[in-house]
Amino acid sequence: MKLATLKDGSRDGQLLVVSRDLKTACIADAIAPTLQRALDDWNFIHPQLDDLYHRLNAGRAANSFDFEAKNCMAPLPRAFQWADGSSYVNHVELVRKARNAEMPESFWHDPLMYQGGSDDFIGPQDDIVMQSEEWGIDFESEIAVITGDVPMGVKVQHAGDHLRLLMLVNDVSLRNLIPAELSKGFGFFQSKPASSFSPVAVTPDELGDAWKDGKVHLPLRSSVNNMLVGQPNAGVDMVFSFAQLLTHLCKTRNARAGTIIGSGTVSNKDASKGYSCIAEKRALEMIAVGEPVTPYMKFGDSIKIEMLDKNGKSIFGAIEQSVVEHHS
Amino acid sequence: MKLATLKDGSRDGQLLVVSRDLKTACIADAIAPTLQRALDDWNFIHPQLDDLYHRLNAGRAANSFDFEAKNCMAPLPRAFQWADGSSYVNHVELVRKARNAEMPESFWHDPLMYQGGSDDFIGPQDDIVMQSEEWGIDFESEIAVITGDVPMGVKVQHAGDHLRLLMLVNDVSLRNLIPAELSKGFGFFQSKPASSFSPVAVTPDELGDAWKDGKVHLPLRSSVNNMLVGQPNAGVDMVFSFAQLLTHLCKTRNARAGTIIGSGTVSNKDASKGYSCIAEKRALEMIAVGEPVTPYMKFGDSIKIEMLDKNGKSIFGAIEQSVVEHHS
Repeated sequence: MKLATLKDGSRDGQLLVVSRDLKTACIADAIAPTLQRALDDWNFIHPQLDDLYHRLNAGRAANSFDFEAKNCMAPLPRAFQWADGSSYVNHVELVRKARNAEMPESFWHDPLMYQGGSDDFIGPQDDIVMQSEEWGIDFESEIAVITGDVPMGVKVQHAGDHLRLLMLVNDVSLRNLIPAELSKGFGFFQSKPASSFSPVAVTPDELGDAWKDGKVHLPLRSSVNNMLVGQPNAGVDMVFSFAQLLTHLCKTRNARAGTIIGSGTVSNKDASKGYSCIAEKRALEMIAVGEPVTPYMKFGDSIKIEMLDKNGKSIFGAIEQSVVEHHS
Repeated sequence: MKLATLKDGSRDGQLLVVSRDLKTACIADAIAPTLQRALDDWNFIHPQLDDLYHRLNAGRAANSFDFEAKNCMAPLPRAFQWADGSSYVNHVELVRKARNAEMPESFWHDPLMYQGGSDDFIGPQDDIVMQSEEWGIDFESEIAVITGDVPMGVKVQHAGDHLRLLMLVNDVSLRNLIPAELSKGFGFFQSKPASSFSPVAVTPDELGDAWKDGKVHLPLRSSVNNMLVGQPNAGVDMVFSFAQLLTHLCKTRNARAGTIIGSGTVSNKDASKGYSCIAEKRALEMIAVGEPVTPYMKFGDSIKIEMLDKNGKSIFGAIEQSVVEHHS
């Protein structure tokens, strides 16, 4: 099943069911007005949405219309939790190596995770509005899951049962604000502005064989200014599965329906697969030639993030954003 | 105006208007079903709630009933943002001094703030349920504000206009998980389980003269096992006002209605005022006698947090919680 949220001027938008081929959609408000409401009562609402999805795919849904990603908000325009992991430890190791910092061995078995802001996500085609290029504007292409209610202390073998939906995410990062912020010891804050998400969230079964062991086994494609810069396989070198990330999150607390967990920047050890954030490219340059060459994003630059199935069809629709100067 | 949220089995509870003396309440669902909904459309809804509040105080509200804190959820049982500052820099300096760590001078003019989990707040009299005493269970008594919509880049002179409501908060902390977690560089995560809030959220005008310059100028009282351990004045030694904290939050992003910002553990330089978290008491012991003496909380221990007005009346009602062992 594929779901999206239509911009209608309200804070939470309107829940849409979207056809598998992303060509048509219909408003699901007779079933649930918003995605959060559907997640709040998933066992009851999910089968009804699934019925509508099947009718839509068969061309038998009433009042369907052409689906357009540009009319979408993030599937959850605001969420009660956004926790971003860092499962591709290769990425962490590279970035540290570039600044001559040791990576603790524990990073290979104890997940990194930070709490992000979730009150104001931006849509898949909304601009990335920033006051200054000097902040070092970067994209980070990631996979994310949305969970149901998960009890504190959940075991890893049960955690997978709570994963409801998958999305892509652009975890925008302000690289030049990070060092000073992390040195304060409280983690990221100003260096992590609003994230954007793919137009469509999909149930794991939509991925078929590509969803296995709590990982998505397909390349994640990132293009900067219409040039493909990365296509690492999200199933390769993902050290912690989404079930493991969820277990980490729930060690000392419950997670409630609508919790979003990010995979961290997708990264393969095979550098020929390219990169999912400019910081990694710069780290490779630093290691190779002693200085970073690729600049961070400037006003007017664009980023496209997409995942295709084995037949070359887009699964989630594309995140396509431009960086734009903020005028207060 | 005083507002609360009644436990009714739903995720967001029911919005209550509570009388100034905290003795009676009435359900506000004819005006707004939940506090989040009221915040989403505050300019329209606030005057209607205020009318009901005045009728309730005058004994003229229909269907009013006895107000009981134990029937309350947190005013926002789940929120889209919880960002906790650390405005009482004295507290930070003490804790660092106890472990022989220098505090950067910048902490006096650049606020510390971390992003907390906000999907599963607990009510004012709900138990603090934890799997292990070994985690070093501590309370942190703080003040918090709830904001309206705030634009990115808001100036400090305008930030105060966006503060809607005030609450007390117990920012429960797991002290023995903090060192390893912070050493990973991504900030707090497992060391910050679910926070609890006072039964009642109040508009700033309820504080009269005690609300000045974006600070609450009254003692915050903390009692452990029914013994008063702290009553520092929240208006003293608060280095960053709530307006300054909000400006810090909005440097690179908007904050949306229902954002909660915490003051950090209230602490006065005058140590005779006692403490608002056990870690501070232990830091003072470390400095004085070379080792901490006061233990963290054990199963069965209780914490009460309250603020009284000049006439000795409770403003927000009390947070009163027991620490209880988790059985999965």
